[in-house]
Amino acid sequence: MIEQEFLKKLSVKTDTKIVMLVMDGLGGCQNESGETEIETAKHPNLDNLAKISICGLSDPVSPGITPGSGPSHLALFGYDPLKYEIGRGLLDTLGIDFEFTADDLAARGNFCTVNEKGVITDRRAGRIPTEKNIEICKKLDGMEIDSVKIFVKTVKEHRFSVIFRGKNLSDKLQDSDPQKEGLEPLDVIVTEKSAEPSAKIVNKFVQKVKEVLKDEKPANMVLLRGFSKMVALPKFQDIYKLTPACIAIYPMYKGLAQLCGMEVIKSGDTIETEFATLKENFSKYDFFYVHIKQTDSSGEDGDFNRKVRVIEQVDKSIPILTGLNPDVIIITGDHSTPAVIGAHSWHSVPVLIYSKKCRFDKVEKFSETEFISGGLGRILARDIMPIALSNAGKLLKYGA
Amino acid sequence: MIEQEFLKKLSVKTDTKIVMLVMDGLGGCQNESGETEIETAKHPNLDNLAKISICGLSDPVSPGITPGSGPSHLALFGYDPLKYEIGRGLLDTLGIDFEFTADDLAARGNFCTVNEKGVITDRRAGRIPTEKNIEICKKLDGMEIDSVKIFVKTVKEHRFSVIFRGKNLSDKLQDSDPQKEGLEPLDVIVTEKSAEPSAKIVNKFVQKVKEVLKDEKPANMVLLRGFSKMVALPKFQDIYKLTPACIAIYPMYKGLAQLCGMEVIKSGDTIETEFATLKENFSKYDFFYVHIKQTDSSGEDGDFNRKVRVIEQVDKSIPILTGLNPDVIIITGDHSTPAVIGAHSWHSVPVLIYSKKCRFDKVEKFSETEFISGGLGRILARDIMPIALSNAGKLLKYGA
Repeated sequence: MIEQEFLKKLSVKTDTKIVMLVMDGLGGCQNESGETEIETAKHPNLDNLAKISICGLSDPVSPGITPGSGPSHLALFGYDPLKYEIGRGLLDTLGIDFEFTADDLAARGNFCTVNEKGVITDRRAGRIPTEKNIEICKKLDGMEIDSVKIFVKTVKEHRFSVIFRGKNLSDKLQDSDPQKEGLEPLDVIVTEKSAEPSAKIVNKFVQKVKEVLKDEKPANMVLLRGFSKMVALPKFQDIYKLTPACIAIYPMYKGLAQLCGMEVIKSGDTIETEFATLKENFSKYDFFYVHIKQTDSSGEDGDFNRKVRVIEQVDKSIPILTGLNPDVIIITGDHSTPAVIGAHSWHSVPVLIYSKKCRFDKVEKFSETEFISGGLGRILARDIMPIALSNAGKLLKYGA
Repeated sequence: MIEQEFLKKLSVKTDTKIVMLVMDGLGGCQNESGETEIETAKHPNLDNLAKISICGLSDPVSPGITPGSGPSHLALFGYDPLKYEIGRGLLDTLGIDFEFTADDLAARGNFCTVNEKGVITDRRAGRIPTEKNIEICKKLDGMEIDSVKIFVKTVKEHRFSVIFRGKNLSDKLQDSDPQKEGLEPLDVIVTEKSAEPSAKIVNKFVQKVKEVLKDEKPANMVLLRGFSKMVALPKFQDIYKLTPACIAIYPMYKGLAQLCGMEVIKSGDTIETEFATLKENFSKYDFFYVHIKQTDSSGEDGDFNRKVRVIEQVDKSIPILTGLNPDVIIITGDHSTPAVIGAHSWHSVPVLIYSKKCRFDKVEKFSETEFISGGLGRILARDIMPIALSNAGKLLKYGA
């Protein structure tokens, strides 16, 4: 594992192209049949690619650590996930094209349902449709409290971003989301004393929202979490000399990609439109991050068979990717989300790196179990970018 | 590999249980038959467990480094063995229930045999019985030199602890044990000038001992090593939120376990009594460190067949362990002690982690050679605790 400052000294601009296909939560676990989701799925195209690639398993942060999407993506992109901490609020807000400034404090919001006693009965307000979310956000957007301007912006379904804009706001705040139903939303408290004025404003905001939404059904309250201010990440252009693009559907992933310097391309709403977007834009960039969300959502829902079908669906689009003939193809996940666990997990993540210059191994199938014997062995996710860059001829020799 | 301070933030108390079974010096090397001690032994119970576990090889400190028992155990327990240095003297002394204070300087002592010229002819004085050791220690215990009080306490067989209690004592001292027969015991010299008063006292002590023991046979002299003062380790309770217990027979291992916060349970004198102790106390703790010494002692004696028999003996007790149905079982060694080498070695160490949530691999046999293809790959010993904690549901997700 190498520091980015070191890579920056070795990286050079070339006209070769890298595609990193991230199936979110890709890694799985065996169900009662003794096979994982990947192993149950039929994916002849991924298998064919595995035969001419170098394969292995990676740990997003470190063996045994279960990562959130922020740290796991940072690691895939070659950043130290322990050095850069990115709050959910910032990620969501960047993903909705909001012009975030250094004065801004963002939080992720969920519309939720509370009963007459103020107790949470549904943390996601029945996952209200995005149209309803837009309607409610209009009622809440544009408040001002103690000279702090407040923006409330729709993300998707029950999720929104709230941005507080003012001088000296701090993100040293704890969530109001108790993460459980049957409890009341928490008052926002500080983790550092200097954040007390910010906590006061946030709590006043929540009280006003409660008043405004009291007659809404089912979205009659909000839960806030992941308070965060701007984080300055080194850019792909600078560290890797890449012109990178992001193809993703969900806001958070677009937000993170932008933080790294990627241009977000409009990608439609389906796996098929994402691959079509890749094809259309292939000449314009030299690095593509393509994000598939559905492997993770099916895993989180504990739906083994749906995750199997998503993997099969992605496999059908692989010929579009290989047909473009990129110099390097990375296929991996950001972490594992085994359906049998129904959540992000610590299990190592399958990773495949194809290039004409890779020293391919004996792996003939795209499978966690097969990848154990792959030529990459067990690596840290942070090692993937340097390997890909070298395979693309984008890293000079170190030393004489 | 992750810092403990980081794990401390993620760890939570749960009612799941982890058992870490450490067969000291477990890893071996092939003898002329082409098989290691583990591979020669018949261990159907370990094999059955391997089939439903994730297996691999670990390096206690770093590839190629041969560790002592202190660093190798620290690493197994998740501590950085390069950050914390624990002298043998401290470990032995803690293991004998001596109330060690911050004013104390301890060393490990061996009774040895010297000839009329003062040359060492047996570094272990024929491994005198513990009863004889107790008798000699009584003669030496309780001296006072230059206002420093000196305690001499039996450990086992030819081994004892000596503790110097006084103001400003330093452990920057070299061993008096030349580690070879045919040489004279060395004068204790300093590694830092500030330790000169301590060196003077230690050398005076050794001269007095020589005088007192001159007519003893075979234990007519002492060798001192591992001078050490108190080291404060973070506790399992604090870092991992565990209530840990230690089941071990030899003092040093009990001592180290106590330093980490473990409660030492009386465990009898045999492998069978150790497993019985585990069973009796299973409801009282949520982490058990069970230490088997005999794999190491047989390896150190170069006795391949005895080591094979010890492994077979442990295997017979495995059903007691699995019958308790712990959430996570770790079976490993602290380092390798191949009988063909007859000493601790640098060879990687087999490690098996069982849990219902592990992504098991294709390994069907408990064997170094088979474990090469295990799903854990080659990890650092320090990664074992985080993996086990996650499998037990004891680590929260990192980041949003």
